[in-house]
Parts: sequence; structure tokens; C-alpha cells
Amino acid sequence: MERKGNLMTYRPDIKVFDATIRDGGLVNNFFFSDEFVKALYLANLRAGVDYMEMGYLADTDVFKVEDFGDWKFCKEENLRRIVGNNDTDMKLSVMADVGRCNIQRDLLPKEESVIDCVRVATYINTMPAAIDMIEYAHSLGYETTCNIMAISKANTPDIEEAIKLLCESSVDALYLVDSYGSLFPEQVQKLTAMYVEQMEAVGKKVGIHAHNNQQLAFANTIEACSMGASYLDATVGSMGRGAGNCAMELLLGFLKNPRYNLTPILRFYEDYILALKAKGLKG
Amino acid sequence: MERKGNLMTYRPDIKVFDATIRDGGLVNNFFFSDEFVKALYLANLRAGVDYMEMGYLADTDVFKVEDFGDWKFCKEENLRRIVGNNDTDMKLSVMADVGRCNIQRDLLPKEESVIDCVRVATYINTMPAAIDMIEYAHSLGYETTCNIMAISKANTPDIEEAIKLLCESSVDALYLVDSYGSLFPEQVQKLTAMYVEQMEAVGKKVGIHAHNNQQLAFANTIEACSMGASYLDATVGSMGRGAGNCAMELLLGFLKNPRYNLTPILRFYEDYILALKAKGLKG
Repeated sequence: MERKGNLMTYRPDIKVFDATIRDGGLVNNFFFSDEFVKALYLANLRAGVDYMEMGYLADTDVFKVEDFGDWKFCKEENLRRIVGNNDTDMKLSVMADVGRCNIQRDLLPKEESVIDCVRVATYINTMPAAIDMIEYAHSLGYETTCNIMAISKANTPDIEEAIKLLCESSVDALYLVDSYGSLFPEQVQKLTAMYVEQMEAVGKKVGIHAHNNQQLAFANTIEACSMGASYLDATVGSMGRGAGNCAMELLLGFLKNPRYNLTPILRFYEDYILALKAKGLKG
Repeated sequence: MERKGNLMTYRPDIKVFDATIRDGGLVNNFFFSDEFVKALYLANLRAGVDYMEMGYLADTDVFKVEDFGDWKFCKEENLRRIVGNNDTDMKLSVMADVGRCNIQRDLLPKEESVIDCVRVATYINTMPAAIDMIEYAHSLGYETTCNIMAISKANTPDIEEAIKLLCESSVDALYLVDSYGSLFPEQVQKLTAMYVEQMEAVGKKVGIHAHNNQQLAFANTIEACSMGASYLDATVGSMGRGAGNCAMELLLGFLKNPRYNLTPILRFYEDYILALKAKGLKG
């Protein structure tokens, strides 16, 4: 499969997806100050980021509210405390984990929510539950993605079967998620090619969510990008579970589309991430 | 150009090159304790590392001896203090910078030295001086490499001319050196292909020396490797100028040749690099 685009041009289909609060929240149990979340929201807007993930839609029957910050649960009133009605071009998302949320109870109809996109996170063995959630969120009017986690531990025929199910579903995009940060770029290249070929044929998109355990999160993200992935996840300062994610500051330095602006992210890094790192990343 | 090898096999032409003392010395002015250098030497031996670079062959007329540790100058008696006669399978190298050393005065005939390989570091505009040094070191009996630095700032026709000169020289290998850590894997792929095609045709090898300014040192190293580079530079804990180098612990985790053993490097990292990092990497 041919590479898409080159280092001198840009692809208009690229969407930069900020996951700092959601994946970073796994480091500090989502105890971000409102000032932090608001400053990140403004930095993302100024940087031209396409999507900002506000957190998880976790089930309060499964997790104790008092053990976590607000961004574990993403109640509508808490979102609006930061973004108002989000009258901007940047879309907002939440992540819903299979088995850890109750979207039938907690997800409002799209017209009552500032959320634009629901990303359903699943392991390869819970695809039917994931697809039920995707169809439900879609029926409420949301964009949806399916984020199949720990893909380095999945068997290729199972991945092929999952892709087939997703092609027949209402999902908008399928994410390659290297939860353990164990894939090498050559592997990301082959997997992305497989994802893109199938999803493109039915008018759907592919995304990449990389982890940095081998210092390959950025390399794997741009490798997937060059193979046709459009949705690129990143977090400021790589903040995220384990070794963290693809750094937003590296990704925006790579992308050539003039709509992206690195400076507000560097400013946010200086003003907020450095302070958090000084405290061992605890909020 | 086809990729060489794959993720399930190994290429016997690969040589792992430890540059911890040499590039790491740029961080602490080469003030490593003898214990540190000896422990690294033993760790490299146990890990199956192919080459260990002991430092620079700097000119004492240019640099004050008292401002630097011994590994800036690599006098024979200091090398032997650590390695004895180096009766091992691991080869030793020193780096000689164009304009900053006097190899006519300081380099002993090969039979009087434990050094096996002289790596001549040059910018693209001092190739004639580099080739003179290469020919002199070769005439004394040494293996030689030419490390053309700051390649991201060189113009392609100049690189092609430099490669032509090296093809006609006695050099054993040409190194792609990304001094600023600014190349993306796609660029490393193209440059390595160009280097390998020309050098292979005259029976010479290609090496890669990457820097980590964009967290791409490891990714670029394995990209160059897959395109046919045989000499792979790395430093324990990435220790090196600026953002550092390709981490030895990542590289050995990637290579499949059973001759390499990661554990001694991890032990050295725990015992020596962590202590150095706690002191801000100063020796």
C-alpha cells in the first residue's frame, strides 16, 4: 500500500485529537483543577486542535465518585462549567469503556449535550458489546469511534473479524490502539494498511493511539499517519498511562497544515505541565 | 529499495556500537570515574556489544588537559588502565574530529594500540581533510569510518559528492549522523537507501548515529537498520549531547540475534546511569 501525502504537503483529512485529560487522568485519578482544564481547552482552541477528549463516561455504580475528579464521569454540568456551550470549531469527545459505563442511563441525546463524539474503548473479545454501545450512541446523534485496545496481543484473524463487524456498523472511525507501546513502526505500518484498506472501502476513517514505552509513540503515530490514518491522538507532555502517549508538541511540529499552531501548546506546557511534573504528575 | 531482514530473523552484518563514553562525555566533559568506564566495558562485553567507543582523540594543543577527563584524549596508557590488552571479541574505537585532533602525532601504529577503529567525524564541507585522516589511520592499520555530521543541514548534491569521494577512499563504513535529531523516519529511509546503494556497490558498510530531540533516535535507528545500515550507534540511557542518542536498552530489546543480551545493560543502567542522572548526568 502506498504512503499517503509527503513531508512537504498536508492532508486535509487529518484530525488532531487531544487526549490529555482522558489518558492523563489515568495518572492522577482525574484530579485536574478547573484552571488546568480551562487553560488546556483554550490552548487547544488556539492551536487548532480538532477534538478535545474531556474524560471518561464512567459508571458511578462501578467507581466511587469521591475517589476521582469530575473528568472520570463527564457529567454535562461539569463539562459546561469549562466550555459553556462550546461555540467553537473544536469538537469534544468522551470515552466509554465497555463494561465500565452505563451509556443508556448517562448519555444525553446529542442536542442536549456539548459532547460531539463518543469513543468506545474495547478489547478484541468484547466487540459485540462495543458495537451495541456504538449503535446506541449513534442513534442519539453522536459521532462514534471504536478503539480496540491492546492490539499487540490480538490475533490477526480476530482483528479481521472485528474490522468486518465495524464495517457493517454505524461507527465513523476505527482506532489502532497500542496500549502497551510494544509495536514497532513496521508493525504499525502493516496494521494501519489493513485497517485503512477495509474502512476506507466503506467510507470510514482510521485513527492511531500510541503509547511511549519504547519511545515510539510519536514515530508510530506519524507512521500510521503516512499509511492513511486520519485521527491522530496526542497528549501535552505525553501525559498518559504508563510511559504516556504521543506528545502533542511533537505531533504539531510535524504536521504541515497551517491551521495548526504549536506555540499555545508550548505555552500550556510551560505554564501547567511543568508544574504538574514537578509534583510527579499528580494533580 | 527493499527492506533488509524482518522482525522474526536477524542480519549477521549488524554491529552494535556503544558510544556512551564518547557522546555521553559531551555532557560531563568526560569526567567518568574509572569504575564507571570499567563497569560499562564489562557490561558491553556481557551484552555482546560489537564496538565500544572509548572517547575522542582530541588535540591537547586545542583543548586544555585539565578541563577534561581522560576520555577526551584517549591516551594509550589510560585506555589500557581500563581494558588491559582487550583480549576479547569486542572492538574498541576512538573518534577523531576534523580540525580538533593531531592524529599524525597522537595515533600509534595499530600493533602498539588497543584501538581497533578510528571514526573520523566531519562536516560536509571538510571532506578532503576527513579523507586525509581516514587514509592516514588506514595506513597505520586501523579500521575507519567517516561520520558526516549535521546531515539534515547538508544539500543532497554535496552528500552525493561526499559519498563518491568515500567510495574511492579506504574507509570501511560511512555513517549517517543526525546531529540535530531533526530527521523524520521517512527522511532517514531515503538517505540510508542512498548511502547503502553507493557504499554496498564498493563493498563498504553504512552506519547510523541518531539523536533524540524529537524522540525519534530509536525509531530512526531501526528505520536505517531495516534499510540496510549495519553499524548501529547507541548509548546506555540515551546519554549524549543535547537530547541524547538512541538508547542501548531499546536497541538490544529490538535486535533478534541471540548474541545480544539485554540484562547486563539494564544492570549497568540501574547501578551507574541512575546515579549519574540523580546528579544531573554530571560525572
